[in-house]
Amino acid sequence: MTEYKIALVGFGGVNRGFAQLVADRNAEWKESLGFTVKIVGVTDLFLGSIVAKDGLDAKQLVALPIEKGALAQLPGGNAEAFNETVIKHSGADIIAEATFTNPVDGEPATTFCRWALESGIHVVTTNKGPIALHGAELKALARRNQVAFEYEGAVMSGTPVIRLAKQALAGAGVQGFEGILNGTSNYVLTQMKDGLAFNDAVVQAQQLGYAEADPTADVEGFDVRLKVVILANELLNARLNVSDVACSGISNISAQDIAQASANGASWKLIGSADREADGSVRASVEARLLPNSHPLAGIAGATNAVSFKTELLGAVTVSGPGAGRIETAFALLSDIVAIHTAHGK
Amino acid sequence: MTEYKIALVGFGGVNRGFAQLVADRNAEWKESLGFTVKIVGVTDLFLGSIVAKDGLDAKQLVALPIEKGALAQLPGGNAEAFNETVIKHSGADIIAEATFTNPVDGEPATTFCRWALESGIHVVTTNKGPIALHGAELKALARRNQVAFEYEGAVMSGTPVIRLAKQALAGAGVQGFEGILNGTSNYVLTQMKDGLAFNDAVVQAQQLGYAEADPTADVEGFDVRLKVVILANELLNARLNVSDVACSGISNISAQDIAQASANGASWKLIGSADREADGSVRASVEARLLPNSHPLAGIAGATNAVSFKTELLGAVTVSGPGAGRIETAFALLSDIVAIHTAHGK
Repeated sequence: MTEYKIALVGFGGVNRGFAQLVADRNAEWKESLGFTVKIVGVTDLFLGSIVAKDGLDAKQLVALPIEKGALAQLPGGNAEAFNETVIKHSGADIIAEATFTNPVDGEPATTFCRWALESGIHVVTTNKGPIALHGAELKALARRNQVAFEYEGAVMSGTPVIRLAKQALAGAGVQGFEGILNGTSNYVLTQMKDGLAFNDAVVQAQQLGYAEADPTADVEGFDVRLKVVILANELLNARLNVSDVACSGISNISAQDIAQASANGASWKLIGSADREADGSVRASVEARLLPNSHPLAGIAGATNAVSFKTELLGAVTVSGPGAGRIETAFALLSDIVAIHTAHGK
Repeated sequence: MTEYKIALVGFGGVNRGFAQLVADRNAEWKESLGFTVKIVGVTDLFLGSIVAKDGLDAKQLVALPIEKGALAQLPGGNAEAFNETVIKHSGADIIAEATFTNPVDGEPATTFCRWALESGIHVVTTNKGPIALHGAELKALARRNQVAFEYEGAVMSGTPVIRLAKQALAGAGVQGFEGILNGTSNYVLTQMKDGLAFNDAVVQAQQLGYAEADPTADVEGFDVRLKVVILANELLNARLNVSDVACSGISNISAQDIAQASANGASWKLIGSADREADGSVRASVEARLLPNSHPLAGIAGATNAVSFKTELLGAVTVSGPGAGRIETAFALLSDIVAIHTAHGK
């Protein structure tokens, strides 16, 4: 029986969700997945850090109060975040990186990933920053060190996208994709279809916890742009930078535009897309598009996300599911560990 | 470089499509998939049979006329279908079984699968019969002989369903599914929504090649029932027989029912579903259901198929794509070979 020693880097909602999955399901995983997980370290800029080579009690971690330096309350814990120690010297086989997304330079997450990969430790992450901004470098680093670098959760949380395209659709000839990759903006558009004004829909999304206090990244397409870069580079072997992707949002779409679209059997959607052109280059964009209601993405409602792959052999293949959520995103980390187990373990 | 020697059993649309893929893409697969394919035998009850251990010209096979005994026209070919010889003694590593679906006893396909598995030869198939009627026996036979038995294409042709659920959603806790698993009936319902009467919509589906001359299996749910049995047994570890699944179709749905549903923001769909009950048993059915338009399957239009998985950790995850087609189904065979290569090859 394989037991993976995991260190959690960043202990906000996602890695706390992962600790909860470990607390609730580790025994079941032994049977269903063929491995168990032991949490050997946690580090968080706010909460501090802890290393316990014999394993931490996942239930105790889940219950940790959200207070500055709280990890010092556990035996052997510190109020300070000794990130490098936890990543390099906790004895972890796998680092679960789930710190905040920094869309400017991907730090400090990128450094955390580098430390782990250089030390021969697998990395699973749900963080868009390191992949969108430094993906090629980190993938090469992982290859050189013969470890895995998995980030299924960076695009649509737990809904499988990257492995769906790379494994299940291998050989089908993926030539491009269109996606609804931001739950907040899709929620806003859906509520506007039901008659709300843009500003009221945004406030409602904030009240439901979908939108941040500053919803700019969601409604202006910046969040989607990072995901488009990740998917295009991954699935189409593009080498796009964030600045290569033309980006506009939904803030200029009026209630009237939406009503008119409905009357014509169409729907406005914020679409992130990329296509391989005849000359082999890849063109990508983020923009609001008017889709006929027969389009596979037109009916994706509320905070649901979806990607429609354009393939040579199958035409459109579309997957939809949650694009956010604490436990949903924590599942993405688990699915990355399953992938590591399949490829490297057993 | 791995080269898989494949024998094609049944040479109708699907395996002819597979030969076409080999003719067009074998060189590319070397690069993109890490293997090539050599066709070492073909057998077909109508066309005859041929064995060529050094490999057959895929292009020549694609061009073979559809005439009784036509394989005798090729050097070394026979007008008679020496099925057992081709399956057991062509030197094939993998049998691609794509004969017709027999919903009564799964023959002769089941015997063909048995011969291969007993001989230590992997089987890939798109045939619902052997899996729905004899799946447990054949899977056990494959395990005993340490070979693969793969049948992704038996449910939704090339659209990934089984591996999506078993691999990409491993650990998410699939508790059930609902599916639109028959393109003909969904096409008919979609056309009825646009105002056609049931009988006219069926005739149109026949003209487009979606529906058989006798559309009973499509519109009465019998085709869907086989797929529900396959998915429930595979994903929910059920042990359902075809007779365990209550089955009704769409022939009693009137144009008026559909118009009324539309007016109420709902759609009639033929749904195959299965759910794990509180006591651990699995309940499955095929029936027309009235879905609110917010349901992930309500907007699936035309001949498209879709499955929505109910999961503990992610809620609904839905995949849609083609559910039929010569090349689409041939891709399912390729995807099974990719899976064999991942698990057994390299």
